[in-house]
Amino acid sequence: MLKRVGLGIDTGGTFTKILAVSESGQVLRRLQVRSEPHLGPARFIPRVAAAVRRIERSLGRSAQTACLAVAGDVDPVSGRLRRSPNLPAFEDFPLRERLSRALSRPVEVHNDANMAAWGCYTLEFKRRCPNVVGVTMGTGVGGGVVLDGRLVTGATGSAGEIGHVRVAVDGAVCRCGARGCLEAYAGKYGVTRIALELLREKGETARGRFRVGESALQPHHLAAAAAQGDRLAREVWRRVGRALAVGIVNVVYLLNPDAIIFAGGVSRAAPYFMGSIRRALRAETFRAPFGRVRIAVARREDMGALGAALYSLEGPH
Amino acid sequence: MLKRVGLGIDTGGTFTKILAVSESGQVLRRLQVRSEPHLGPARFIPRVAAAVRRIERSLGRSAQTACLAVAGDVDPVSGRLRRSPNLPAFEDFPLRERLSRALSRPVEVHNDANMAAWGCYTLEFKRRCPNVVGVTMGTGVGGGVVLDGRLVTGATGSAGEIGHVRVAVDGAVCRCGARGCLEAYAGKYGVTRIALELLREKGETARGRFRVGESALQPHHLAAAAAQGDRLAREVWRRVGRALAVGIVNVVYLLNPDAIIFAGGVSRAAPYFMGSIRRALRAETFRAPFGRVRIAVARREDMGALGAALYSLEGPH
Repeated sequence: MLKRVGLGIDTGGTFTKILAVSESGQVLRRLQVRSEPHLGPARFIPRVAAAVRRIERSLGRSAQTACLAVAGDVDPVSGRLRRSPNLPAFEDFPLRERLSRALSRPVEVHNDANMAAWGCYTLEFKRRCPNVVGVTMGTGVGGGVVLDGRLVTGATGSAGEIGHVRVAVDGAVCRCGARGCLEAYAGKYGVTRIALELLREKGETARGRFRVGESALQPHHLAAAAAQGDRLAREVWRRVGRALAVGIVNVVYLLNPDAIIFAGGVSRAAPYFMGSIRRALRAETFRAPFGRVRIAVARREDMGALGAALYSLEGPH
Repeated sequence: MLKRVGLGIDTGGTFTKILAVSESGQVLRRLQVRSEPHLGPARFIPRVAAAVRRIERSLGRSAQTACLAVAGDVDPVSGRLRRSPNLPAFEDFPLRERLSRALSRPVEVHNDANMAAWGCYTLEFKRRCPNVVGVTMGTGVGGGVVLDGRLVTGATGSAGEIGHVRVAVDGAVCRCGARGCLEAYAGKYGVTRIALELLREKGETARGRFRVGESALQPHHLAAAAAQGDRLAREVWRRVGRALAVGIVNVVYLLNPDAIIFAGGVSRAAPYFMGSIRRALRAETFRAPFGRVRIAVARREDMGALGAALYSLEGPH
């Protein structure tokens, strides 16, 4: 008997990644299309459906369900995006219903970080850690919670928003409008903000130190500089690590997970922020929950699409 | 057929409350004995067992299982207290095993705030809110998490420790040794500390303003003063409310619960701190999780013992 195929679609502000995977998480086919959110969701749906057909023709098999992961606040019950800084034109559009019709199969819609957490739980930990918190570090900071092997969605599907956990009182302003959110310290713009702040303190410029304009300064420049031993870049990542540590301390006290795992582009800089996290966790005197928690970095990329593909095999939720 | 009886035992630093309840949470018998932790756990077990026998004789029925709620970090797997500021002599004692032998029935041991959260979930919300976070305000601040109608215990049984979620950076020192824990702002000693700080700022004394010595100043004095319109006492509770709000904001972003409910003695002052919480939650711009969450105060007392009694009816975990 043929094994089932999982179909995951991960839509970000620029690209939509489509993966067909085996039950064990092996990628069978991969395709990327432009999200082109400015053209609106009505144009997005047929483009994705065409890509899925292409994948399935080439594979000679079809997935019976699909799961769409989207950056933003998703209502999994209505299958709509309530709010999305990256895809404002998609807000309130009946994504699930239209995609389900276009693909002629049941579709679920979830937050991308929730799906990434599911991917980490199933692939990185092989379902052996029942309680996993995933932290995605990209443009923003997202998160997902798996407890007792089940994805936690919460009352409105918004659970796992670790990016908005407060790590500073009257701290830096976040995109959400509040102050002191973890995202304002550990997402792309947060990391860049910390670097520019430090440069200003030292009377230096991004161009002078990193040979890149202020508006072009990105976490990957700072990771590369840290790799070469640049002290200012190292200090940036230590500050990122300390902010992440406050968020993680809160997560551990509330949920006492077996593991916390980082995913997403900015998590590649883990060698430069992990030390600060470990130091902060070692300083906690309430040892039971901290002695057991594993802090890890996802080895695979595309965790949102992978997690969505595997979640599509879990049956209706 | 006779309905089953739930047996809950809630052990604090001074008293142990024993409740026999019906499946619907009606209290059938109630007994209180001294915990006398200084005499050690070996003397505690027979005292509790004798009280249970007295209850069951008077009731003419026996519970088939029992659940012990204890203030401290409980390992529900081994049935031992790993750490307890109120019951240090009980640490590492095989509580579950010895109590189970003395009562001739299976016993579970859980953190008291986890049991209080279960009590709130089953009694205050009649199991109609699947995702509930309970916050107990007593000497310390504890918490428990119920998601999808199941108690979250976490990897080591330590989940729900909202009292150690950080609400201030480099804030007040907590009993646990860390700084800025919610407990240092909203537990008994935290509330008193805020009041003494405010009195000092104003050049006043506790005796002058509240007719009570500095070391005797308790949250209930401050609640009584607030009820009479005392402005300093009102300001104390506003500060408590603002600290609670930071903790609640973090809880809502991580777990997106249907309801957050306060229990325990200090929660009686809710009329004086709830306004600050509601104002803070209204200010959050990310509305979906905040628009739906109910913030409530438990109407019944003894939530730890009640929750334990009802949890004993849930079958083995």
